[in-house]
Amino acid sequence: MDKQGLKVLFHVNEMEKWDTALGNITNLIKDVGRGGAEIKVVANGPSVAAYSDSSRLEVMKALADDGALFMACRNSLRKMCAGTDTCLTEAALPPFIKIVPAGITEIVRSQSEGFAYVKP
Amino acid sequence: MDKQGLKVLFHVNEMEKWDTALGNITNLIKDVGRGGAEIKVVANGPSVAAYSDSSRLEVMKALADDGALFMACRNSLRKMCAGTDTCLTEAALPPFIKIVPAGITEIVRSQSEGFAYVKP
Amino acid sequence: MDKQGLKVLFHVNEMEKWDTALGNITNLIKDVGRGGAEIKVVANGPSVAAYSDSSRLEVMKALADDGALFMACRNSLRKMCAGTDTCLTEAALPPFIKIVPAGITEIVRSQSEGFAYVKP
Repeated sequence: MDKQGLKVLFHVNEMEKWDTALGNITNLIKDVGRGGAEIKVVANGPSVAAYSDSSRLEVMKALADDGALFMACRNSLRKMCAGTDTCLTEAALPPFIKIVPAGITEIVRSQSEGFAYVKP
Repeated sequence: MDKQGLKVLFHVNEMEKWDTALGNITNLIKDVGRGGAEIKVVANGPSVAAYSDSSRLEVMKALADDGALFMACRNSLRKMCAGTDTCLTEAALPPFIKIVPAGITEIVRSQSEGFAYVKP
Repeated sequence: MDKQGLKVLFHVNEMEKWDTALGNITNLIKDVGRGGAEIKVVANGPSVAAYSDSSRLEVMKALADDGALFMACRNSLRKMCAGTDTCLTEAALPPFIKIVPAGITEIVRSQSEGFAYVKP
């Protein structure tokens, strides 16, 4: 079966789902090969905090080098900074992470553009 | 990018996911504007109990006024009444909530009609 | 509304979601009838362990007889055998369960072929 041209968006909104998500993405790339799938990862809600975790960022960076696009929801970053959690400023995000105004819109629009949806 | 014509179904099957779901919907409407997205919310499983929670209903009603369509799975309402939980009769549901015979069918059919799927 | 031709993939990656998933599938078949929907179930992650649980297998077998196709992720089976959990060999799987090399690829590709996605 043709594996070319696959497009998928991974939705991560809880911290405890990152390991599963990153494992899924690793397995997908291993199976279809680099370039075999267009991969987006949208983090919204508390899960954006993972973007300040250096050990996780290392894994993400390797996947980004393989073509995965990691995104952070600006609404969620701001909510985190307004609350009691550690504040993660946009400037502090590694350059390979893209900020989107509203993660939820990215999730919906991507599906309208043919991306599959996976909730790890 | 064109944000018109977006269609999305939110699937809520656990009580503890309502806050996230309602927050996502609020953010989506704020981002794309009233009428910028057709929004359905299908509650099945234990999550239907939220339809008897007056503080949550107030938030839902405001979102319904902004165009979101809230739905309750009849199978789930009946299961709740058959069990030890508080029974929520169909007649007790606010008029802005639509009852569907099987939430799962609504979820599947909506996607076949072009709705994106989001599991908060 | 036409219920023929529905296609759906259920994604189960946690053991505690099987009851909900099997209930959803039962309700869907009851609602649209045998043959009213093409149904795939992909188990990846720890959820594959359910394929060695005889009481659950009985329910799955009945749903398989009604047309649902149950799949196990080979990556996940191997990971389970490499870890401290009970090892479930491919040979030990009932014949009605199909093994796929990577569950995540099946999930993404199915959506590109028009399957709806449901995460119970």
